[in-house]
Amino acid sequence: MVLNEAAQAALNSSKLVHLTTINPDGSTQVSVVWAKTDGDDILVGHLGSGQKLRNLGRDPRATVTVITGDRNEIGLDEYIVVHGLATIELGGAPELLQDLAHGYLGPDVKFPPMPDPPPGSIIRITANRVGGVGPWTE
Amino acid sequence: MVLNEAAQAALNSSKLVHLTTINPDGSTQVSVVWAKTDGDDILVGHLGSGQKLRNLGRDPRATVTVITGDRNEIGLDEYIVVHGLATIELGGAPELLQDLAHGYLGPDVKFPPMPDPPPGSIIRITANRVGGVGPWTE
Repeated sequence: MVLNEAAQAALNSSKLVHLTTINPDGSTQVSVVWAKTDGDDILVGHLGSGQKLRNLGRDPRATVTVITGDRNEIGLDEYIVVHGLATIELGGAPELLQDLAHGYLGPDVKFPPMPDPPPGSIIRITANRVGGVGPWTE
Repeated sequence: MVLNEAAQAALNSSKLVHLTTINPDGSTQVSVVWAKTDGDDILVGHLGSGQKLRNLGRDPRATVTVITGDRNEIGLDEYIVVHGLATIELGGAPELLQDLAHGYLGPDVKFPPMPDPPPGSIIRITANRVGGVGPWTE
């Protein structure tokens, strides 16, 4: 496993996640998203289209970052950076987002809020390297 | 000004900042840092060397992101993404970090914690475009 127990805990803590993709001109594109793990994969739901999907279709390299809220022994904030490769799975976004909304918004929240959401897509990022500050690089 | 009043407030709130640079192979490098603004510039202090300095010396494109902790009218978390170009100024890092530590660690904290810190360098990122979710894109 690339993602050890501490990494899994950080990525499944309902903390907001930074997802970074690569624009056509080589610059970086950043979104803040909800996420959870599935083994060494990180799952992100997306209802529509968008720059990050277009970017990942062209260059699958993605980075996922979470600040955990913990501090290390010298008082610096811990955070995890996961580098991986993304695949796009069509459909399934409303179900994944509803699952994530329980943790991110509240146990009883209905999300997406509209009655008949589009199927969207799931971004599945397979981790290949972990960095940052914390017990996930041990 | 590229950074309006709301952007300035978000970037000077002592919230942890994601700084993204571009690796030699075109992948993204992410660090979590402290920051403040100086007009349309965002200042980050760095005591040593490191991948982000090497990256910015080769390709000055940088992205700075902050999650503010506020939510918009449909309940989604607000965050600011600032795209800019970085220049590296040698020296001054201990003074900048001490200034930032008052907000990030506590009003009485001495930082860097060592008695004779190296001069380091200051990364100055001049904003040229703002995105994300919040009143900074209006």
